[in-house]
Amino acid sequence: MKYAVGVDVGGTNIECGILDELGNVLIKRKYPTKPERGVDAILESIAVTLEQLSEEAGIAAHDIEVIGLGIPGLVDPEAGISLRAVNLNWNQVPVAAKLRAITGKPVFIDNDVRMYVYGEAVAGAGRGHDYVYGITIGTGLAAAFVQRGEIHRGHNFMAGEIGHVPVDHGTFACGCGRIGCLETIVSATGIAKQAQTRIELGEASLLSEWFPDVKDIRSSDVSRACLAGDDLSRDVLEQTGRVLGRALAWVVPTLSPDVIVIGGGGALAGELIFAPMREELNHRLLQDYRNHFAIKSAELSDDAGIIGSALWALHQHKQG
Amino acid sequence: MKYAVGVDVGGTNIECGILDELGNVLIKRKYPTKPERGVDAILESIAVTLEQLSEEAGIAAHDIEVIGLGIPGLVDPEAGISLRAVNLNWNQVPVAAKLRAITGKPVFIDNDVRMYVYGEAVAGAGRGHDYVYGITIGTGLAAAFVQRGEIHRGHNFMAGEIGHVPVDHGTFACGCGRIGCLETIVSATGIAKQAQTRIELGEASLLSEWFPDVKDIRSSDVSRACLAGDDLSRDVLEQTGRVLGRALAWVVPTLSPDVIVIGGGGALAGELIFAPMREELNHRLLQDYRNHFAIKSAELSDDAGIIGSALWALHQHKQG
Repeated sequence: MKYAVGVDVGGTNIECGILDELGNVLIKRKYPTKPERGVDAILESIAVTLEQLSEEAGIAAHDIEVIGLGIPGLVDPEAGISLRAVNLNWNQVPVAAKLRAITGKPVFIDNDVRMYVYGEAVAGAGRGHDYVYGITIGTGLAAAFVQRGEIHRGHNFMAGEIGHVPVDHGTFACGCGRIGCLETIVSATGIAKQAQTRIELGEASLLSEWFPDVKDIRSSDVSRACLAGDDLSRDVLEQTGRVLGRALAWVVPTLSPDVIVIGGGGALAGELIFAPMREELNHRLLQDYRNHFAIKSAELSDDAGIIGSALWALHQHKQG
Repeated sequence: MKYAVGVDVGGTNIECGILDELGNVLIKRKYPTKPERGVDAILESIAVTLEQLSEEAGIAAHDIEVIGLGIPGLVDPEAGISLRAVNLNWNQVPVAAKLRAITGKPVFIDNDVRMYVYGEAVAGAGRGHDYVYGITIGTGLAAAFVQRGEIHRGHNFMAGEIGHVPVDHGTFACGCGRIGCLETIVSATGIAKQAQTRIELGEASLLSEWFPDVKDIRSSDVSRACLAGDDLSRDVLEQTGRVLGRALAWVVPTLSPDVIVIGGGGALAGELIFAPMREELNHRLLQDYRNHFAIKSAELSDDAGIIGSALWALHQHKQG
């Protein structure tokens, strides 16, 4: 049996796992990234963790064929370089070469959202679909497209950043320095922010009974309040779904996916967001496109990143 | 020397050409489609035209390796079937098999816009670019994406129909039966219609001096009037560019092209449309995307369709 390692490097936590060729997670561990210690210490910590994990799982080091890493920000997967990862303070870091030097294994890297969507595409909600468009609604919003098992990266490996297109009536400041980007509405942060802002402007909500300080409201609270009958929360989730639907109305005819997989914390609201999204989308699509694709929740939850990284690394390694 | 035939089947005219492997058009002919005579008579007319052309050009029939056809509407290129071409009144027509039976040559078909964009991608304005997004601004608006020499078709071969996404403030009826689709503004028809409507509503324009009946105004007249200093015409072209720029703000991060090639009659206005389009687009894109792609006018004009069809057929044939 051959094994692969999948690593999801986040600004807060690193998750490492050892998987079999089918994408089953045999053992995994999550630990704090501590970006301030620098890239070499972080990569060293990954190598040490892998040694420990393989020992614990009784997997011989030589049976681990390959290592895959998902890294936030801009990645050059062909050169194995992290071009820019703001949260990690990485710039032009040759991650693949460095980790290969420590571990002796072939290392493949790509953007973390692409690895997540690849995992869902081949082993999660996209299984059996040829054209998988995946979105993660988390702190921000990003997307990736997997076509017949290959990841679309585009020029400069930059395909997928649809979270920073301004939307109508968007007024919130975005982390990118501009105003009203899609992800200021359609993200876990955006959902919480919409509720907070409307309550601060005087609208009534169950949430203000639950939270004396509106700043404590999280997107999951908005879903919870909606299910408890709160009108404001229902409206926030509906608006979020509609804004996403209007964005996807451009993506669907551009790519023609046969499934849209939606993951990330903000997607846990499920149909509370998906139903208005679907309505808006169908209203805006040509008859031919309507309902010719599925809309699904991500299935692998937190493991999608390590599963995608490991399976993509195996796939790349096979292709030589 | 090996040759290939490219055919562009339109609702009004058919254009046939014989090309060499490099995409040079050696001889070509254009003649009326007359869709009412039915598919068999039309395909027969193509076969006869090809015989005449090869005789005139002194090319032996056996040196013609392959035939490529661009067909409007929905095409299944894998099965060689025209699924639906409204202007031709074709439904589920096995075009490739029929034409192969008449000519004895391998026949490859695809949607006409894809063939046009493929031609521009490999032999026109997209030459040397890896990720070519092409748009035709004609009677309607459609697009295609060619990635490293391969055409993106998507699920059900339906990628590219972005002309039917509704845009803000769109009020014109669309041929698809809905209101305010992108192509009601961004098309040759849409440009003329915007000018006509505003003049009918009482706005002053050089065009009303030139045309006693506003219905006679064409998109080329709007460009001409703009160059002659007409404010209304300038504004119409600027609005058209801005609406297109807002649409492309979703396409660019989705695909990350390294060039956008714009063709069709409505694109002859060139910078009068491109400049406001570029401004709107840059305003809406993340810094990383700005100016990281080129915007170019199509170069092959009317020949892009037959060049793309011939070269694509050769490419497909080589792949077996």
